[in-house]
Amino acid sequence: MEIQIAVAKVNKYAVTESGDTLEVVERPNGGLSVVLADGQTSGRGAKAVSMMVVHKVMGLLAEGVRDGAAARAASDLLFTEKKGKVTSTLNIVSVDLHTNTVVITSNNPSPFFIARGESVECMQTESKSIGTGRTIRPVISEIPVEPGLVIVIFTDGMVHAGERVGRPMDICTSFKSMLEDQDPSPQAIADFLLGEAVRLDEGRPGDDISVMVLKVQKMRGDTVRRMTVRLPINA
Amino acid sequence: MEIQIAVAKVNKYAVTESGDTLEVVERPNGGLSVVLADGQTSGRGAKAVSMMVVHKVMGLLAEGVRDGAAARAASDLLFTEKKGKVTSTLNIVSVDLHTNTVVITSNNPSPFFIARGESVECMQTESKSIGTGRTIRPVISEIPVEPGLVIVIFTDGMVHAGERVGRPMDICTSFKSMLEDQDPSPQAIADFLLGEAVRLDEGRPGDDISVMVLKVQKMRGDTVRRMTVRLPINA
Repeated sequence: MEIQIAVAKVNKYAVTESGDTLEVVERPNGGLSVVLADGQTSGRGAKAVSMMVVHKVMGLLAEGVRDGAAARAASDLLFTEKKGKVTSTLNIVSVDLHTNTVVITSNNPSPFFIARGESVECMQTESKSIGTGRTIRPVISEIPVEPGLVIVIFTDGMVHAGERVGRPMDICTSFKSMLEDQDPSPQAIADFLLGEAVRLDEGRPGDDISVMVLKVQKMRGDTVRRMTVRLPINA
Repeated sequence: MEIQIAVAKVNKYAVTESGDTLEVVERPNGGLSVVLADGQTSGRGAKAVSMMVVHKVMGLLAEGVRDGAAARAASDLLFTEKKGKVTSTLNIVSVDLHTNTVVITSNNPSPFFIARGESVECMQTESKSIGTGRTIRPVISEIPVEPGLVIVIFTDGMVHAGERVGRPMDICTSFKSMLEDQDPSPQAIADFLLGEAVRLDEGRPGDDISVMVLKVQKMRGDTVRRMTVRLPINA
């Protein structure tokens, strides 16, 4: 099999720094983790919060700490640092080659999607952002790694896309319609969803938007690990 | 402008775990850093070393520590942990949007390449691996971010490719020949160099091989940040 991950991100309109932080890291016992945080508000302050949260989680995962414990630790750190006045969403999606599962750890009221073959679940859980109290716990889902699995997570910029102009985005329906295409690549799915959101925001995103798509498929081609990054810069 | 990064990695033949670790992280003041370490020997022990080194560097960079200081700190950590008996190579390639430069920090006897327009430099520096003593310092190069810049770094599996069968790889010549192509993408360059190395090793790499290509070009298309990851798994 092979795991494919694609990420697409845009900043809030006219804001140079995204309050969303997303990093992908290798796990010490094999596999990798995607860590996504969206700090409260936007711009520099939000960026500092989301970077603090993501780096706390990455550091703990690198030491072999379980995802759920890492999420709780990040929440407690944020609570302590900001006295409960600043929140952040947090998603961790881990491909754990030890258990052969994908583990989704969510402290994010925004939904996330799990597709397996014909079945598409749009998961709307009672998951709370981190940093607001001492009892915050993540919602954790564990799914076997098998060909055809697709997982989509995103920040609330996607959820609120189009609301300003009275045309809210139905992300789940967009995702389902995309999946009806012939075996779309994760990049195609991520670009489609982000493109829809930006279009509904009339080309001026009202918030930072990040979307991550993970897909498991049968091995195609060689056994080379690959990564690509594209960073547009204003210069 | 836009920055494009591509990475390609293979394991030593018949070894399931790579001793090379490569991670890409966002910098707190804008831009990103690629951190690549190759721990001594191969397999699990080497992986633990290279992960320790890379995570030390990532943690420090996230706090705003300069690349050179982060490399020295990682060397001291490794020296202290392993009593000077285990070495690792370390490369940090940072796109610093504060200074608008690419900073290459190298503790790696393997060469690296810098191409600007027609000029291609194959840099063979007196750079030593980390962890062997208290006076280890990196070799640092700083280059303005401008369209046409291409930087290539790799681990010594590439340098030693083909030696076993008496046909060592001339990586610099391969790179130059590749650049004569019509504006090759970073992924095409990385795949070409890795493919050459694996071919010279007769399909059975004698060591872990990692190659990273960074390219700066004029902005093409939208302002979306993107990342893709491909992870082949044995299952």
